[in-house]
Amino acid sequence: MDLWYSEYHSPHVRFTVQVNQQLYSHESEYQAIAIFNSPEFGRFMTLDGVMMLTERDEFIYHEMITHVPMAVNPNIRRVLVIGGGDGGVLRELEHYQGIESIDLVEIDHCVVSASKQHLPHTAIGFKNPKVTVHYNDGLRFLRHIENRYDLIIVDSTDPKGPGEVLFTKEFYGTCYKALTPSGIMMSQSENAFYPEDAETVSRCHARISSTFPVCKVYQAHIPTNPSGHWLFSFASKGLHPTRDLDAHRWNSRNIATKYYNTRLHGGAFCLPNYIEEILKPNEP
Amino acid sequence: MDLWYSEYHSPHVRFTVQVNQQLYSHESEYQAIAIFNSPEFGRFMTLDGVMMLTERDEFIYHEMITHVPMAVNPNIRRVLVIGGGDGGVLRELEHYQGIESIDLVEIDHCVVSASKQHLPHTAIGFKNPKVTVHYNDGLRFLRHIENRYDLIIVDSTDPKGPGEVLFTKEFYGTCYKALTPSGIMMSQSENAFYPEDAETVSRCHARISSTFPVCKVYQAHIPTNPSGHWLFSFASKGLHPTRDLDAHRWNSRNIATKYYNTRLHGGAFCLPNYIEEILKPNEP
Repeated sequence: MDLWYSEYHSPHVRFTVQVNQQLYSHESEYQAIAIFNSPEFGRFMTLDGVMMLTERDEFIYHEMITHVPMAVNPNIRRVLVIGGGDGGVLRELEHYQGIESIDLVEIDHCVVSASKQHLPHTAIGFKNPKVTVHYNDGLRFLRHIENRYDLIIVDSTDPKGPGEVLFTKEFYGTCYKALTPSGIMMSQSENAFYPEDAETVSRCHARISSTFPVCKVYQAHIPTNPSGHWLFSFASKGLHPTRDLDAHRWNSRNIATKYYNTRLHGGAFCLPNYIEEILKPNEP
Repeated sequence: MDLWYSEYHSPHVRFTVQVNQQLYSHESEYQAIAIFNSPEFGRFMTLDGVMMLTERDEFIYHEMITHVPMAVNPNIRRVLVIGGGDGGVLRELEHYQGIESIDLVEIDHCVVSASKQHLPHTAIGFKNPKVTVHYNDGLRFLRHIENRYDLIIVDSTDPKGPGEVLFTKEFYGTCYKALTPSGIMMSQSENAFYPEDAETVSRCHARISSTFPVCKVYQAHIPTNPSGHWLFSFASKGLHPTRDLDAHRWNSRNIATKYYNTRLHGGAFCLPNYIEEILKPNEP
C-alpha cells in the first residue's frame, strides 16, 4: 500500500507525508480529528486537515512554549493552559516542582480522549495530579477571573475555526486581567514566511502589543509546520524575556530537553530582518 | 493547467510546489538542470531533481553564507567561491569595497549560462568586474595553491554527484593550505533533522574539525530546503565567529539585508540540543 497524507502550506505549496495507517477519525462538535501513523514522524494528529503535532518533532513546540517563560520567572505557581488538549505542554510543566496548580481549558473533549488513546508521549502530561481539566471555551472560562495566574499558555490551533477567538483583542485583554503582576502570557504565533500567514503575525502582534507593555516574538524551527519555521509571542506585565532570564537557576534544575537550552533562549529572540519588518509597525 | 513540481525531502516526505511553466531543461555533462516559474517562489532551479534556489527565499542562504564571515573579518581581500554558479554569493560580495578579487570555480558552465539567461536576480553577481570565472573542478583548481585566499565559500550541491568531492577530508585540507593565516572557509552543511542528512552533518563536521582549529556550525531557516532548516560551517585558522564579530564595523557599511543582521549573527550560533548532540562526538 502506498498511502500519503497531504496538506497545503500555502495555496501553492503542499507538504506530503507517507502514512502507514489511519488510527483514528472523528467529527467532533468543533472539528474533524484524525490520527495517523507514519514512518518519518511517528504518530501525528490533524484537526480540520491541518497537522497539529507529530511524535517526532512535537518536542520543539512544547519545549519552546513552556521553558522560555519558566526560565524567565522561576517562581511561577499557578498556570493556565488554553487549548493544549494533547497534553504536551502539561508534560513539560511537570518538570517544575514549584508549580502548585495547572488549569487546562480545552474546548473539545474529543481531542483529549483521542490523545489519551493514541498519543501517549504527550498525553502522559494528564497524569500530573496538579492538573485540572476544564472543557470550556477559553474566553468564557477567563471572563470573570482576575489576578489569578502567573502564566497563561495559549496553545491554540490556527486562527480559523474554534481557535479564532484566541487571537482577538478581547481575549488578550481578558488574559491580562487574569494574570498576576508578574504574569506572562505565551502564545503560538504562526509562521511569517507565506504572505497570508505574515498578515496574521502582524495583526496579532499589534493586538498583543497594545494590551501588554512587553511583547517580544521569538522563533523556532519546526519541520512539519508551514515553512518549517514558527513564531511565539512572549507578553508580560513587566518581565523581559531575555534580560530577566535566570539561566543559572534554570540550568540547575537539570531538565533534559532536546531543543531548548538557555543559550538558544537568547538566540531565539534574534529575528531575521524580514520578520522584524513584519512586526515593526506595531512595536510599542 | 494544474502542474506541480515535487521532490523528496526524505524517503517518506515530499515537498510539492505549483508551477506555471518550465523555462529551461538541459542534461549537461554533470547533471540535469531545470528552471521553473512558480506562483509562490518565483523562478527556481533544480539540479538532478533537487531544488537549488528559488527567487523568493534564496536571500536567506546567500546572505547567511556571505555576511557571517565578512562581518568577522572586515579585511578580507581575496575570495574564492567554489560552486555558486547562480551568482547569488557574488551579488552579496559586491557590497564590500575592500575585496580586491573574486575567483569563482564552477564545474558546470551550463549552470552559469542557464542562470544568466533565467535567474537575473542572482546572476547579476557576474557583472562585478572583480570576478573571474573558472570552469573547473574545485579540488583540481585548488591543488597547487597556497596562502592565497582570505575567504573560501563552498557553495556546493548536496554531497551526491558532482558536489561529493567538496565534502572530503582531502578537499578541506586543500582549502586550509590555500587560505591565508586569517583565512576562513565557509560551507553549506545540509539539514540535521532527517536521519540520513544528520549523518552527513556529523561526518562533515568531524572532517572539518580535524582540519581547522576553529569550526562552528550555525543555522538559518530556509523554507524550501528539507525540514526548512539549514546548517552552515564556519571554519578558520583562528578567527572566532562570534567573539571576533565586528558588529559596529559591519553595521557602518549600511548593507540592506532581508535576513542577516549582527544580532542574528550571534543568535544563529545558538543551536538546539539535538543538533549539538549530532555535532558533539566530533567537537575538538
